[in-house]
Amino acid sequence: MKIIIIGGVAGGMSAATRLRRLMEDAEIVIFEKGPFVSFANCGLPYYISGEIAERDALLVQTPESLKARFNLDVRPFHEVVKISPEEHMVTVAHEGSEFTEHYDKLILSPGAKPFIPEVEGLSEANNVFTLRNVPDLDQIMLALDEEPQEAVVIGAGFIGLETAENLRKRGLNVTIVEKAPHVLPPLDEEMAAFVQAELADKGVKVITSQSATRFEEKGKVIVLEDGQKLASDVTILSVGVQPENSLAKAAGIEVGLRGGILVDEHYETSQKDIFAVGDAILVKQEITGDDALIALASPANRQGRQVADVLAGLERKNKGSIGTAIVRVFDMTAASTGLNERFLQQNHLPYQAIHVSGKDHAGYYPGATDLTLKLLFEPKTGKIYGAQGVGKKGVDKRIDILATAIKGNLTIFDLPELEFTYAPPFGSAKDPVNMLGYAALNLAEGLSENIQWYQLEDELASGKVFLDVRTLNEFKQGRLKADKTVHIPLNELRERLAELDKGAEYIVSCHSGLRSYIAERILKQAGFAVKNLDGAYALYKMVKPEGVEK
Amino acid sequence: MKIIIIGGVAGGMSAATRLRRLMEDAEIVIFEKGPFVSFANCGLPYYISGEIAERDALLVQTPESLKARFNLDVRPFHEVVKISPEEHMVTVAHEGSEFTEHYDKLILSPGAKPFIPEVEGLSEANNVFTLRNVPDLDQIMLALDEEPQEAVVIGAGFIGLETAENLRKRGLNVTIVEKAPHVLPPLDEEMAAFVQAELADKGVKVITSQSATRFEEKGKVIVLEDGQKLASDVTILSVGVQPENSLAKAAGIEVGLRGGILVDEHYETSQKDIFAVGDAILVKQEITGDDALIALASPANRQGRQVADVLAGLERKNKGSIGTAIVRVFDMTAASTGLNERFLQQNHLPYQAIHVSGKDHAGYYPGATDLTLKLLFEPKTGKIYGAQGVGKKGVDKRIDILATAIKGNLTIFDLPELEFTYAPPFGSAKDPVNMLGYAALNLAEGLSENIQWYQLEDELASGKVFLDVRTLNEFKQGRLKADKTVHIPLNELRERLAELDKGAEYIVSCHSGLRSYIAERILKQAGFAVKNLDGAYALYKMVKPEGVEK
Repeated sequence: MKIIIIGGVAGGMSAATRLRRLMEDAEIVIFEKGPFVSFANCGLPYYISGEIAERDALLVQTPESLKARFNLDVRPFHEVVKISPEEHMVTVAHEGSEFTEHYDKLILSPGAKPFIPEVEGLSEANNVFTLRNVPDLDQIMLALDEEPQEAVVIGAGFIGLETAENLRKRGLNVTIVEKAPHVLPPLDEEMAAFVQAELADKGVKVITSQSATRFEEKGKVIVLEDGQKLASDVTILSVGVQPENSLAKAAGIEVGLRGGILVDEHYETSQKDIFAVGDAILVKQEITGDDALIALASPANRQGRQVADVLAGLERKNKGSIGTAIVRVFDMTAASTGLNERFLQQNHLPYQAIHVSGKDHAGYYPGATDLTLKLLFEPKTGKIYGAQGVGKKGVDKRIDILATAIKGNLTIFDLPELEFTYAPPFGSAKDPVNMLGYAALNLAEGLSENIQWYQLEDELASGKVFLDVRTLNEFKQGRLKADKTVHIPLNELRERLAELDKGAEYIVSCHSGLRSYIAERILKQAGFAVKNLDGAYALYKMVKPEGVEK
Repeated sequence: MKIIIIGGVAGGMSAATRLRRLMEDAEIVIFEKGPFVSFANCGLPYYISGEIAERDALLVQTPESLKARFNLDVRPFHEVVKISPEEHMVTVAHEGSEFTEHYDKLILSPGAKPFIPEVEGLSEANNVFTLRNVPDLDQIMLALDEEPQEAVVIGAGFIGLETAENLRKRGLNVTIVEKAPHVLPPLDEEMAAFVQAELADKGVKVITSQSATRFEEKGKVIVLEDGQKLASDVTILSVGVQPENSLAKAAGIEVGLRGGILVDEHYETSQKDIFAVGDAILVKQEITGDDALIALASPANRQGRQVADVLAGLERKNKGSIGTAIVRVFDMTAASTGLNERFLQQNHLPYQAIHVSGKDHAGYYPGATDLTLKLLFEPKTGKIYGAQGVGKKGVDKRIDILATAIKGNLTIFDLPELEFTYAPPFGSAKDPVNMLGYAALNLAEGLSENIQWYQLEDELASGKVFLDVRTLNEFKQGRLKADKTVHIPLNELRERLAELDKGAEYIVSCHSGLRSYIAERILKQAGFAVKNLDGAYALYKMVKPEGVEK
């Protein structure tokens, strides 16, 4: 059997090597239009700062190593320009000429390409780059050799933030421009606020709710929607990706949502014997069951392996993806899995949100750092929709655990039951993930009610009273700007209940939510109407710094 | 309602605080025979080296703080000496006198006590200590003030190893004596071997398959089974714990396996209105369904909270535990969850074992370190029995993920599907946990067959041929001591198949298992009888250093 694979990175190369392990006698040809196969896509930004010092470290495999170990026929600089499904042929362009090659089975792994917005002056700009592959990186490095001062990163998604960090670490002045109201659009605003604060702390300027409307002076000046002009010596355009589907479409292969290549559960496209994997295909978002484009390395690698299994006759199906991602931004980590709150709101799904603060390991052991987790779940069934985390350490672990829980259809009722490795350097006897479960159970079982940070203003405007149960010292150092604030430290609450008004409704808050929940329970049992400000003062202050005063 | 709780640490104090949040009007009294409640049990060893510098850091709560916040009546130095179930009374000894107190509900959280073996001379020794609570620690610190030189730790379980590490970090010469054939008996031998190597590397002497048979000269000399004598200035006895059940037994409460207090799924003992939680109770080992004693902080805390829920009328059941534990030993981490291979063998459960080596994060990003994971599963259903991990970083995360998978009844078929946070500082596109799944699938689906390190000698003795597919350079640097060894580097294997004997059976190995699996696939498809040495040369050399030569 002769198998041709188009695209020699994550999905394509996983397919090729697995195919060889399953089909020693198959002829396997990989056409890659670029100069490199199997390179470390996700490592590219770290070469900018020198954190990854050797360019060769990014080149995981070469055609020679793949020939020697896997007997693969890997051809870089070979661009497939046409697929002829009826004839089972591809037309390949190489060094100025074209040739055709027959296949029995064809695997498309074309990936996604950077989205390039139509902006006036962009085509004349000579200092605007994308970062998707090694040639992109080489161009950026050449530009950086000129020792530019001012860098602008347009788009504050995962790659944009990594690129901004590494440009900053290289010593440039960096400005990030993001069209959404906050950086890291895959996360919700209050979680992204931690990253935004870290960027500011490390001297990166962030401009949100703005996009570039015009490039002037060959890109040296970027004009934003509000008219402000940014000077830029080097600009990175990182506003998302789109499926590389032109070849597939020309071959009559059906595409769907946002141009994603449609495949069945065995990765076969609408054209017989043509399969597709990776960033270019539509997958089932497992939590909703809807079509989705999920451009991530982990699913691409799995799909590549699975399509090889399918071609070798093994029983394998694409079950879909949930989408799990992480970014380190200087000393802060932010990660998410599954659906975010914005998506749940937009799709009118019934949900509850909770935030839990904790430490990455036992607080009594040196070096413990804060982390904040957010969980979104269906109130009745306890089904977990998604989770997000921010903190300096241990965020990856908690989101990986929660991603496993989602994939395993665990509910909030299972989270308290999870038994994690606990010794002081690694965790706590009640891990923050357990605490998420306990907090979610308290909501689901009616022991606690909460409101979110964005609801506070309206709630207070409607006449509710804000009850701050922190210590006097904490209260003095900073507090909510609000007319109707009552301050009673938790440890005095029981004796001072008479100061409260049974006719009023209270929103209770402390610093991080532990004490306010205790206060809520005291008040509820004493017959008061009370809700908890989820995430408490610390989260509110992070996302709404203009809402507090010293 | 009046609730009395006996024991004010993990389970007891979790019960007390949750009870208060649920029952504001209940009278809640906690009797603790020791001086402290709610102390950081698991932090005690780290105070020995000064890694935890402040003794107060170990004292998480005080009776005063618990009174102020939770309105709890916490009484240290109060030992309950008798329970009268019929009368619903306890008799309490305090400062030389006794009094009785009535309860409506009684919660026992007595914990476990160190097992003290009967050894000649032990009662006369004045330098032998256990480490279970703060007074124990204070005694050890007094002894350490004398600036002793020689320390012996008897028992190489989790606490024993932590204590040994911290004594060593304090500058003492430390010898560990362990009765089992290897340190860390909860892990299997080949995984524990990594820890044993780390101990040796850090100058800790380890003596296995030996126990103390006599203490001489008031403990200054310890005589082992084989007659060798160890000098000791300070000895830590850490040979396990047993349920603190004397009070319960005297009250007619039924106990089971190894003295564990029997409770129903609502934590009620055989005596009405008397409940029990924590290290002293028998739980269901969730994977086998059998009774088990699992003395760990995490389940104890959960049980305390759950018994409070039961008393408050909430629907809550004890679902059991799987047992997840971790230890840091200098720069090495070792962790396990669920059942180990020894248990599966002893109980004649059908299983397969696989080992996977990987990096804690992407190999192309600086600072990546090796980790080795072991997975045990049921061959037909793919049910996961347990997992173990060793390495410098990221072991906690992988074992927590696998513990979540076990709790969620995920099988090996689900592991490749798990989607983890991937960016170069945190992981790899194919995480070692995914790789465990792939490797397990290869076994389950008949693509690969393996043998374990302890089977190699017999397999070769029976006539099989050892095929080493590492590079010549690797082979020269160290190889298996074996008559029948063939060396063909993987990259030459396809061309040199003619050198192999179709009538022979091969055991193939490389350094860590990646290349040997590829070789196995090449050979299997070429019609050879071949099995893979699971874990390959690196694992074999670690656990059987006497079996290799340079």
